[in-house]
Amino acid sequence: MTNPADLSAIAAARAIAAGELTSARLVSACLERIAAEEERVQAWAFLDGDRALAQARACDQRRAGGLPLGPLNGVPVGIKDIIDTADMPTENGSVLDAGRRPRADATVVRRLKNAGAVILGKTVTTEFAYYHPGRTRNPHDPAHTPGGSSSGSAAAVAAGMVALALGSQTNGSVIRPASFCGIVGYKPSFGAIARTGVLTLAPSLDHVGVFARTIEDAALAEVLMGPDGVDGDARLNFGPLMATMTSTPPVTPSLALVKTPVWDRALPETHAAFAELAEALGEAADEVELPDEFAGATGWLGAVMAAEMSRNLGHYVDRGGDRVSARIAELVADGRKLPAPAYLAARDMRGVLRGGLDAIFGRFDALITPAATGEAPEGLDSTGDPVFCSLWTFCGLPAISLPLLSGPKGLPLGVQLVGPHGDDARLLRTARWLAAFVNGAGSD
Amino acid sequence: MTNPADLSAIAAARAIAAGELTSARLVSACLERIAAEEERVQAWAFLDGDRALAQARACDQRRAGGLPLGPLNGVPVGIKDIIDTADMPTENGSVLDAGRRPRADATVVRRLKNAGAVILGKTVTTEFAYYHPGRTRNPHDPAHTPGGSSSGSAAAVAAGMVALALGSQTNGSVIRPASFCGIVGYKPSFGAIARTGVLTLAPSLDHVGVFARTIEDAALAEVLMGPDGVDGDARLNFGPLMATMTSTPPVTPSLALVKTPVWDRALPETHAAFAELAEALGEAADEVELPDEFAGATGWLGAVMAAEMSRNLGHYVDRGGDRVSARIAELVADGRKLPAPAYLAARDMRGVLRGGLDAIFGRFDALITPAATGEAPEGLDSTGDPVFCSLWTFCGLPAISLPLLSGPKGLPLGVQLVGPHGDDARLLRTARWLAAFVNGAGSD
Repeated sequence: MTNPADLSAIAAARAIAAGELTSARLVSACLERIAAEEERVQAWAFLDGDRALAQARACDQRRAGGLPLGPLNGVPVGIKDIIDTADMPTENGSVLDAGRRPRADATVVRRLKNAGAVILGKTVTTEFAYYHPGRTRNPHDPAHTPGGSSSGSAAAVAAGMVALALGSQTNGSVIRPASFCGIVGYKPSFGAIARTGVLTLAPSLDHVGVFARTIEDAALAEVLMGPDGVDGDARLNFGPLMATMTSTPPVTPSLALVKTPVWDRALPETHAAFAELAEALGEAADEVELPDEFAGATGWLGAVMAAEMSRNLGHYVDRGGDRVSARIAELVADGRKLPAPAYLAARDMRGVLRGGLDAIFGRFDALITPAATGEAPEGLDSTGDPVFCSLWTFCGLPAISLPLLSGPKGLPLGVQLVGPHGDDARLLRTARWLAAFVNGAGSD
Repeated sequence: MTNPADLSAIAAARAIAAGELTSARLVSACLERIAAEEERVQAWAFLDGDRALAQARACDQRRAGGLPLGPLNGVPVGIKDIIDTADMPTENGSVLDAGRRPRADATVVRRLKNAGAVILGKTVTTEFAYYHPGRTRNPHDPAHTPGGSSSGSAAAVAAGMVALALGSQTNGSVIRPASFCGIVGYKPSFGAIARTGVLTLAPSLDHVGVFARTIEDAALAEVLMGPDGVDGDARLNFGPLMATMTSTPPVTPSLALVKTPVWDRALPETHAAFAELAEALGEAADEVELPDEFAGATGWLGAVMAAEMSRNLGHYVDRGGDRVSARIAELVADGRKLPAPAYLAARDMRGVLRGGLDAIFGRFDALITPAATGEAPEGLDSTGDPVFCSLWTFCGLPAISLPLLSGPKGLPLGVQLVGPHGDDARLLRTARWLAAFVNGAGSD
């Protein structure tokens, strides 16, 4: 019989609700998997098995008592360690925050708990969710990076330690590690998930996202969504994702294959895999070229990141000395040199580019594009290049990475689908269609 | 019998709806008043009597035809010349925009037309709604400034040329000229009125506001309110103002008399008048001191203005040479020197200060404070000092100036009431109560 740790989150929640599985048994199975794999993968920044089991037993009692159960009742979730938890440390990937204990749960953690989830532990993040790597390794080959900055969450899900984990993306920190680790990564539309209690890097760009092994599990992100009255940018309020995404598309979805102005930065393996994919898709995908102005997106995102991260992380650099990485110090210094009007001009380009993409979304259900430049690079000194995410993050569009391809080393290559802002449900439905098409069968 | 030009907008709309007055007669009366006073006051940047009369006759035909009438049917309104009108020039107070013809009406102009208003003409603004004065004079004494930047709108209403006019405020451009001209100026909460089609100065601070001779007329600003799907900051959606504001307060309102950290910049006449007012109010007002951190507000507003106005008006300076004022060139240069993180830090203080003020609004219905440093200064070289508006504009709070006091030269001194964000209706109701209290009778 299946090891409970290998169940999808949805299947596990169903089995627990049906009395076929207890949360305690599921959490034990996850802890056993972690015990077996953690030395090789190093996904966790904080883990307290006893506390997780106590939460699990409380979930089992809720069911035994006939109380109403949330959609995630008894299901363990991993939390990226830039997301505040009141009962576990939150160290932001920096020695400067060693032992830091937030006073309150982040909105997303509170919402997970309300949905019945067990907060299993905190996962490794790069320093301040920027480039300086943590110790996590790629479960497919520990000599390779898992990607970043949500390194631990991606690796934990890929290693079967947990079915669902939270990450964040300011440039490419969900989509890229999902691609490298061969799992599903979903970054909802900007404004869908309130970021209260999540380390603020660049509020114009910061998104919370999720990692899962199935598209359906990724849609569980719906329990995180909706305004919280604190994050003023969290204004989207779309209906439940699950119902729409599991419906059959009324017509065959049409996909715009977009190589983007950074196509040259993709490796030959990516060029080859996408050529094959395009051929397989045939009439379901048309190649679409973006107008020249889109070439500026990487630079505009960089300017917004530098300015806003200087504002929000500058205090760490000022007091941190050699306890902050050179990469962060450099970014803060760059941001401090950027004149305010140049920052505002860069930020204003988001609306211009979104307008240009809206014209494409009038004709296509989703864009299809690489999730990363190629397979996960060898070595742990770098978390890889987020450049295939920058444009979509800058525009705040919903994006999902699907583990549909692989490269010459046998490592995963993600396919990224991008949808129009606010229409996450259709994007996920299209993703299901694509996965079924490529796999020649359903995706669940 | 009353000259129709002296009617309030509400009284005029009622008389037109009742068939006791025609819009054509009202507009003619306004044009006659303008003909008599314009040489002395110089409030208008563009005026075409024939076009106004044609609109008036269309309004009269609407009524004659039994068609539904808007709340402003047949009532003429003046429009500050930074607000786009498709059928009249919009020159932004700059020779660089001489003869400029926008392609579309601003949202507020479209909404006025939908409410049945006659767009009488465009009123003089300072250059780009900043400090460099236009030619308008104070109707109470043409040797004095009317204030700015909404100089023409304030002067036109004060001179009885029109009962209602639109202005804008990025620092003190509605409240200050209303104070100097002895009329009601109302700047709604940030986000209440969409600014699409209004010259963008500093989008974090730009507000549309109105001038009127009664508080009830000022509440007609409700026809301008609500999101328009274009201005992303226009998110407030409160119910109709008029019903609440004309109700009787359930208990006697309590006012917090706030001298603000800039009290020393008020002239002796203002100190004296507010001491008298405080004494008259007795137990209805308590003096409240703001915490020290509020002293920074003027500087933070200045930083946000410099950064955002550099971004939005820099192109005028770059191509304008000596056709832009030194004051604007200096502002743009200052903004270009401001580092982006310093701008972001200044902007973030808005939330901090609003939080501090919320504690005061828990105990008081409104703050009461000077609208300007004193009477309108002599001379036309300056439009006076907006410093008593800066804090409230920075925080985006609704504010209204009431012509309740006067100074040693017999010129008006406004009393400014400020309310909590989004509760404009209560602010206007409190304003009516205060006006009745001071005048010893109703305000209409």
